[in-house]
Amino acid sequence: MNQADIQHLLEQVASGAVLPSEALEQLKTLPFRELSCANVDGHRALRTGRNEVIFAQGKTPEQTAEIAGALWEQNHAVMATRAKRAHFEAVLQVVPEAVYHAEAQVITAGKESSEAPGRVAVVTAGTSDIPAAEEACAVLEFQGHNTDRIYDVGVSGIHRLFEKLDRIRGADAVIVAAGMEGALASVIGGLTERPVIALPTGVGYGASFGGLAALLAMLNSCANGIAVVNIDNGYGAACLADKILRR
Amino acid sequence: MNQADIQHLLEQVASGAVLPSEALEQLKTLPFRELSCANVDGHRALRTGRNEVIFAQGKTPEQTAEIAGALWEQNHAVMATRAKRAHFEAVLQVVPEAVYHAEAQVITAGKESSEAPGRVAVVTAGTSDIPAAEEACAVLEFQGHNTDRIYDVGVSGIHRLFEKLDRIRGADAVIVAAGMEGALASVIGGLTERPVIALPTGVGYGASFGGLAALLAMLNSCANGIAVVNIDNGYGAACLADKILRR
Amino acid sequence: MNQADIQHLLEQVASGAVLPSEALEQLKTLPFRELSCANVDGHRALRTGRNEVIFAQGKTPEQTAEIAGALWEQNHAVMATRAKRAHFEAVLQVVPEAVYHAEAQVITAGKESSEAPGRVAVVTAGTSDIPAAEEACAVLEFQGHNTDRIYDVGVSGIHRLFEKLDRIRGADAVIVAAGMEGALASVIGGLTERPVIALPTGVGYGASFGGLAALLAMLNSCANGIAVVNIDNGYGAACLADKILRR
Amino acid sequence: MNQADIQHLLEQVASGAVLPSEALEQLKTLPFRELSCANVDGHRALRTGRNEVIFAQGKTPEQTAEIAGALWEQNHAVMATRAKRAHFEAVLQVVPEAVYHAEAQVITAGKESSEAPGRVAVVTAGTSDIPAAEEACAVLEFQGHNTDRIYDVGVSGIHRLFEKLDRIRGADAVIVAAGMEGALASVIGGLTERPVIALPTGVGYGASFGGLAALLAMLNSCANGIAVVNIDNGYGAACLADKILRR
Amino acid sequence: MNQADIQHLLEQVASGAVLPSEALEQLKTLPFRELSCANVDGHRALRTGRNEVIFAQGKTPEQTAEIAGALWEQNHAVMATRAKRAHFEAVLQVVPEAVYHAEAQVITAGKESSEAPGRVAVVTAGTSDIPAAEEACAVLEFQGHNTDRIYDVGVSGIHRLFEKLDRIRGADAVIVAAGMEGALASVIGGLTERPVIALPTGVGYGASFGGLAALLAMLNSCANGIAVVNIDNGYGAACLADKILRR
Amino acid sequence: MNQADIQHLLEQVASGAVLPSEALEQLKTLPFRELSCANVDGHRALRTGRNEVIFAQGKTPEQTAEIAGALWEQNHAVMATRAKRAHFEAVLQVVPEAVYHAEAQVITAGKESSEAPGRVAVVTAGTSDIPAAEEACAVLEFQGHNTDRIYDVGVSGIHRLFEKLDRIRGADAVIVAAGMEGALASVIGGLTERPVIALPTGVGYGASFGGLAALLAMLNSCANGIAVVNIDNGYGAACLADKILRR
Amino acid sequence: MNQADIQHLLEQVASGAVLPSEALEQLKTLPFRELSCANVDGHRALRTGRNEVIFAQGKTPEQTAEIAGALWEQNHAVMATRAKRAHFEAVLQVVPEAVYHAEAQVITAGKESSEAPGRVAVVTAGTSDIPAAEEACAVLEFQGHNTDRIYDVGVSGIHRLFEKLDRIRGADAVIVAAGMEGALASVIGGLTERPVIALPTGVGYGASFGGLAALLAMLNSCANGIAVVNIDNGYGAACLADKILRR
Amino acid sequence: MNQADIQHLLEQVASGAVLPSEALEQLKTLPFRELSCANVDGHRALRTGRNEVIFAQGKTPEQTAEIAGALWEQNHAVMATRAKRAHFEAVLQVVPEAVYHAEAQVITAGKESSEAPGRVAVVTAGTSDIPAAEEACAVLEFQGHNTDRIYDVGVSGIHRLFEKLDRIRGADAVIVAAGMEGALASVIGGLTERPVIALPTGVGYGASFGGLAALLAMLNSCANGIAVVNIDNGYGAACLADKILRR
Repeated sequence: MNQADIQHLLEQVASGAVLPSEALEQLKTLPFRELSCANVDGHRALRTGRNEVIFAQGKTPEQTAEIAGALWEQNHAVMATRAKRAHFEAVLQVVPEAVYHAEAQVITAGKESSEAPGRVAVVTAGTSDIPAAEEACAVLEFQGHNTDRIYDVGVSGIHRLFEKLDRIRGADAVIVAAGMEGALASVIGGLTERPVIALPTGVGYGASFGGLAALLAMLNSCANGIAVVNIDNGYGAACLADKILRR
Repeated sequence: MNQADIQHLLEQVASGAVLPSEALEQLKTLPFRELSCANVDGHRALRTGRNEVIFAQGKTPEQTAEIAGALWEQNHAVMATRAKRAHFEAVLQVVPEAVYHAEAQVITAGKESSEAPGRVAVVTAGTSDIPAAEEACAVLEFQGHNTDRIYDVGVSGIHRLFEKLDRIRGADAVIVAAGMEGALASVIGGLTERPVIALPTGVGYGASFGGLAALLAMLNSCANGIAVVNIDNGYGAACLADKILRR
Repeated sequence: MNQADIQHLLEQVASGAVLPSEALEQLKTLPFRELSCANVDGHRALRTGRNEVIFAQGKTPEQTAEIAGALWEQNHAVMATRAKRAHFEAVLQVVPEAVYHAEAQVITAGKESSEAPGRVAVVTAGTSDIPAAEEACAVLEFQGHNTDRIYDVGVSGIHRLFEKLDRIRGADAVIVAAGMEGALASVIGGLTERPVIALPTGVGYGASFGGLAALLAMLNSCANGIAVVNIDNGYGAACLADKILRR
Repeated sequence: MNQADIQHLLEQVASGAVLPSEALEQLKTLPFRELSCANVDGHRALRTGRNEVIFAQGKTPEQTAEIAGALWEQNHAVMATRAKRAHFEAVLQVVPEAVYHAEAQVITAGKESSEAPGRVAVVTAGTSDIPAAEEACAVLEFQGHNTDRIYDVGVSGIHRLFEKLDRIRGADAVIVAAGMEGALASVIGGLTERPVIALPTGVGYGASFGGLAALLAMLNSCANGIAVVNIDNGYGAACLADKILRR
Repeated sequence: MNQADIQHLLEQVASGAVLPSEALEQLKTLPFRELSCANVDGHRALRTGRNEVIFAQGKTPEQTAEIAGALWEQNHAVMATRAKRAHFEAVLQVVPEAVYHAEAQVITAGKESSEAPGRVAVVTAGTSDIPAAEEACAVLEFQGHNTDRIYDVGVSGIHRLFEKLDRIRGADAVIVAAGMEGALASVIGGLTERPVIALPTGVGYGASFGGLAALLAMLNSCANGIAVVNIDNGYGAACLADKILRR
Repeated sequence: MNQADIQHLLEQVASGAVLPSEALEQLKTLPFRELSCANVDGHRALRTGRNEVIFAQGKTPEQTAEIAGALWEQNHAVMATRAKRAHFEAVLQVVPEAVYHAEAQVITAGKESSEAPGRVAVVTAGTSDIPAAEEACAVLEFQGHNTDRIYDVGVSGIHRLFEKLDRIRGADAVIVAAGMEGALASVIGGLTERPVIALPTGVGYGASFGGLAALLAMLNSCANGIAVVNIDNGYGAACLADKILRR
Repeated sequence: MNQADIQHLLEQVASGAVLPSEALEQLKTLPFRELSCANVDGHRALRTGRNEVIFAQGKTPEQTAEIAGALWEQNHAVMATRAKRAHFEAVLQVVPEAVYHAEAQVITAGKESSEAPGRVAVVTAGTSDIPAAEEACAVLEFQGHNTDRIYDVGVSGIHRLFEKLDRIRGADAVIVAAGMEGALASVIGGLTERPVIALPTGVGYGASFGGLAALLAMLNSCANGIAVVNIDNGYGAACLADKILRR
Repeated sequence: MNQADIQHLLEQVASGAVLPSEALEQLKTLPFRELSCANVDGHRALRTGRNEVIFAQGKTPEQTAEIAGALWEQNHAVMATRAKRAHFEAVLQVVPEAVYHAEAQVITAGKESSEAPGRVAVVTAGTSDIPAAEEACAVLEFQGHNTDRIYDVGVSGIHRLFEKLDRIRGADAVIVAAGMEGALASVIGGLTERPVIALPTGVGYGASFGGLAALLAMLNSCANGIAVVNIDNGYGAACLADKILRR
């Protein structure tokens, strides 16, 4: 509702075509009309560039399958994260094209895009950080990106990292999954001009406190240009990379 | 040191030109020689695209001025963050071109770049979040970017935000500075396809615990593609935006 | 035995229909009734307007059933929260009218009141927040209120919320169940003049720390007039709404 | 400009006393007014029933005065919380009607409403909790409510509380300000059928951790129908009471 | 109000001397009448054995002096803790007998008791823990107990402790004030059959987190029969010792 | 072997009934006895007045039984806490007199003392706090004390507490087990002159954080003379009561 | 391949027994060997003096066995920590020499060194701390050190400790494993001039918060020269002792 | 008191030279006699190798000077840490040889030892970490060690570190002072076979939480053989290095 709309409304009030009380109702919700326009075209993709994704954890297999079916019908591309095999089996009844990425705990059917706007290096400090990294990879590939997996190059054997440095520097964005003290994000952040997305994982002994140690370390990185996402949130890391690459 | 170098070294050992003990010393440091190559060209800008910045907090005015002088001489562009007026006065003795951005607590002299690779929207939830936002703006402008300040549009009066939505959506990246519950990052994250950099601030009543509440909220955002940086770290937010824009 | 019952008893004494000694017997046991494991608080309705409710978690099915039987006998209305199916089966032996609300983990038998003093909008950010919301609904309905379930309208797709705004604004009180960053409570708080009861849930990735992130966010809400209750405490949210509506 | 004002304006348009174009001018500035440092939310009263309030902490006296002047012009009622005397003195230059409530650290000028929709009992556990309570009282009185101060009735001398019970039970809502272990909220919650708003304060020895102990205690109250607000947030407690009473 | 009182009340209702509505009022507050009896004789000493003490922190000197005057008039013995010199000077105007214990930050005038029911050993790990210990001593001596100060016998030089063991074992109760890791409480707890009151202090390097480290250590003591009080709460430690000794 | 036993042994030496060499043999093994997994502390009763108790959690049933056998042989009284039924069954093979207190998770065989130095009131806020309270009771009864169980008298129905006040006030010490906000300890602490031992339990909704809320509340109690022990540590509460009563 | 092996290889090149090209092949694979899930760090012994160790937690048995096989082939000595029996059984297929240390959850095959550079005293406060201590012992013995187990000598029976003091003082380094309040590390630290490695364990009641209490206590030790490692990280404690002893 | 002593004592009892009650007294303190021997020679240096050091923080200048005078008299070497200039001036009155190390906040007079058992590399990540490093250096030099300061080589410019690697590898022990994410300790730990002492500092933006982030990171280091000390505790780091070097 722009100035012209309001002018028009007021003229209708002046002419008696609209009652003051009716006009009041419209003016009260004024700031939101624009938003309900976004609602009219009805698609998240218009606003954020990507369709809705199902977060399966805490949902029943049935709920997951129902939502998956609806999204599949709409977009012919659907993805669910944090999905157990039981979720997958329920989804498979509804969307026969569904595929289960077991280590990533991700279900995909179809692909959001077939163009590949870029390549994302997905790096892990150790072998135990791979599940979070795989979640990121599955999401990125569903979105149409190329991924380059560089696993187990943590700072305790830093020469392993240097050998891979060209692949890291050549990527369009870098996701670094690390638990324990999460130092790998800082080291890579100091060695590349690419945006680094730090993905803390819950790997570690007692005082990692479920990933808190790595999370705080990454937030406090002395290297510049480090983006941090939630603990074990490979999905979030991938979405951020996607937004950066699609710019 | 590549394969050819090692082959050469071994041949020298075979020929007696190099003693085994000498060769051992060289091989021990093998993985790091490549890095010391980076050291030879000696410039952070080569690795990360940006020169070193002075973090003045915890440094004396004298230390700050000494480093500033050295960097100015090298690059004819220097910046210090978290600088009090006393830091500025000391720097001014050495770098007469220095300017003090008081609200941002940033000193700059010169500019790193005069091209403007993009425009960054810098948004705050409230008036009290402005210092962190200004730190981000000062850094971005020093790096050559255009900034668009959109202040005091927090979710308690969400229509103020909607009025500015076009400017936010039109930016290349968005920095959202918010204290209290930090909800603004999630709301903007759900309304744009641009990367959103969430910058938690320490603004709030007791249970904000110095910004912890906003930090956790932003890390847990239900919107996709949110990058989080440290509390009140406007500098970090700017550097991340810079890396994204220079891609 | 509620206020009306006591008033009625006293009038019977005044009219001679009941002897003082008989009334004494009834009133004597009023304050509480000692069971083997609990002192059932029969006097609570006089003080707080509502009878005692059984918190089944940490109680054995047998203890739960014994208390439920005593309360049923006294009030012909009984409710237990955080009840597993085993609790329900034990209660069913004693109170055949008992019904199990599985998603809410609530047992009810009868109803505390048949009048409906108001309507409470129960809103969730996502599908995974529904169990906490259903606990609130089961309690509210047992207390005689009308409920209006508005689920899955979180801020990542804020237009879904705006579409439901009339129902939210038309309610007498609003309960907002949200995990992750809990931003929905702030957004709704800024859009209605009704009291908003923020109910944080434990839904989220690692750094939600079991609901701590949502809890802190809600406590720090920049919107006015937000009441916060304990994590996943749908029961507490309902009781607060009940107190507000019965005013 | 509140609902009644707009209704009145629209009626003037309907009657021809005001031209549509004149009304447009007034309505155009309604949603917010851009100052140099803030977007004053003039539309808030339409959405939430109350005008914007200035949170002075973290704002300069000049910023505070500028916003206060704008709000005063708009509504002839303005309030600032967390205001130091320096804020007050700056506001006084712009709004000569301003009054400073020193213990509450609140500035008010005028009153939002002269009707008194109810009475709120504001209770403290100890003398040191009074500043938070006074903040609540100043806000409530500005909003037009009656307040009933009941101070220093903490549970270590519980008979002091019982003597005041009638006043507490007779109120429309109860705010309980308590530091240390915050037990007073639970005790009052178990003795009244009114909504109880628990306001934790930072009063206490070391392990109160700035009010965390009282906050957690109140969130975990075994009494029903307890609403919790942020630590030392008397303003928030008052706003919640206001929303409950205006229902 | 006992059974006979209720019987009597009901008979008055039966006879018409009391209206049902009046009787209802009395019955509603039934459980608290007994407590309001405690209110009538008005003295905390009757319930807990000790008079009220002023917690000066967060009170103005004027408030402190006013309360001190009232208590002095009533009991001819008054004490204030956490008192700055300004509090003392205000109290001195009203109670000329007042004495200031500077290291303990305690004001006393007179003594609660002249009998000495026992001797309390007050032990510190280091010199920096003395202020908390002195607060305990000042309170104990005001209450009439003998104190035995044993300072600077921490576990890093454990032989110093063993030399004092007879004095510790001979006391009726032992207060152990310690910061840092608070190990002294465990060591003493394993060496005496007396009750040990562990008083954590805020002394220490960064990760003592204001006494949290010592507090947790003391709560987790492997020695039996350790009572823990709040950080730096010498007053609380003394009151507990007092209750133990007066048994 | 307690103090009386040693006194008796020495008198036998003095009278010639026992040879010094025979006494040496007995005394030599006194301080501790090395088992394969433990050094049983036979000397503890001399130092602290009570024999060693087995903390079964984290020990295998076999280890528990081996230690129990050694202690039984030495003292004809043995107790294990945090014992599962499997521990009990292993102990039973070695100590046929062993009894299992299932709700308390305690094994006892014999009794440390048959005199009853006093009576301890063991109070719980709710039914779910009973296991911790029962652990305290089992330990106290093993040590020869009388216990008085007063369960389910939490502050949400405070009249239940007042009815039991005489029993509480008449005890020599009071243990208060409470989860949630733990307010019961403060209320009882304000109503008795006896030492109150606050025993926080892990009962509660999410933000109880495993008993942290109750623990902090009890440490911050505004009532005087409250001793706090570890979360769910009924054993520790009992040992403290024992030390107080044996004084 | 350790330093001696490389020295030997180079001498063979110098003597002509090995061609430079053959030596290159061997050295080329030295830095690491890429497996499907890991980059085995073959160069680590050159840098840090010890080969890579497998952290089995979070790895599948298959991954563990694959890495173990590669390391065994390279060094004829391999170790895995945090290994379940399923890991062991998979490793046994590949490395028949593998042995499982069940209490320590460690797999070893062969030994890194047969020289014994020193003796490490491994001390525990209680029986429940033994698993962490055994992890340390298994690692130390694999590395060729002598260990001296001194278990169950916690400070609640401090004479047990003094009896073992000579063995502790005679060791080259001391590892102290303790849960609860971890006081043993401070007491031993005050009694020896040897480096003390404090190893906090998760043993304890509720407020040990999974070992946090012991960790903080050890970090805050008033004794000098205490090194702290992660909670339950016996492996880290052993590696630190190894570095100290090999100096 | 050994077996012979006990035999002798018992024979005295048998002969009547010692009364049973007297013997009981001696036997009760049995385990501690050995320790009181340590007390007789009275010197901490005998037990731990180093004399007592004054922790000036929390002590008055007068207390500090008094202790310093006594220690100076005894050992002709004295040191105080965390000393302000006021402490120094008071000490100077008593110990004219005292010197003030301002950046380290350390006072020294004389030296504990003139031999130099080794060289310690003291490394910092940034310039702001220097005060903690200087505290370590002052202590080490007082103890007679050589120090090698290597400052400002943090991982954001990792090539600076590699250039200094020989000096680091050549030291006998390495202290790494780092704030923010503390990654430098892990990187150095992976590059040397020397013991690495990680010294977290409080340097950083908001979410460093006073050094907690660096502390947790260091405790969770993926590199082996890292010893961690308290935040900003340069003194503790030095003492640990000293114990390692004097082995």
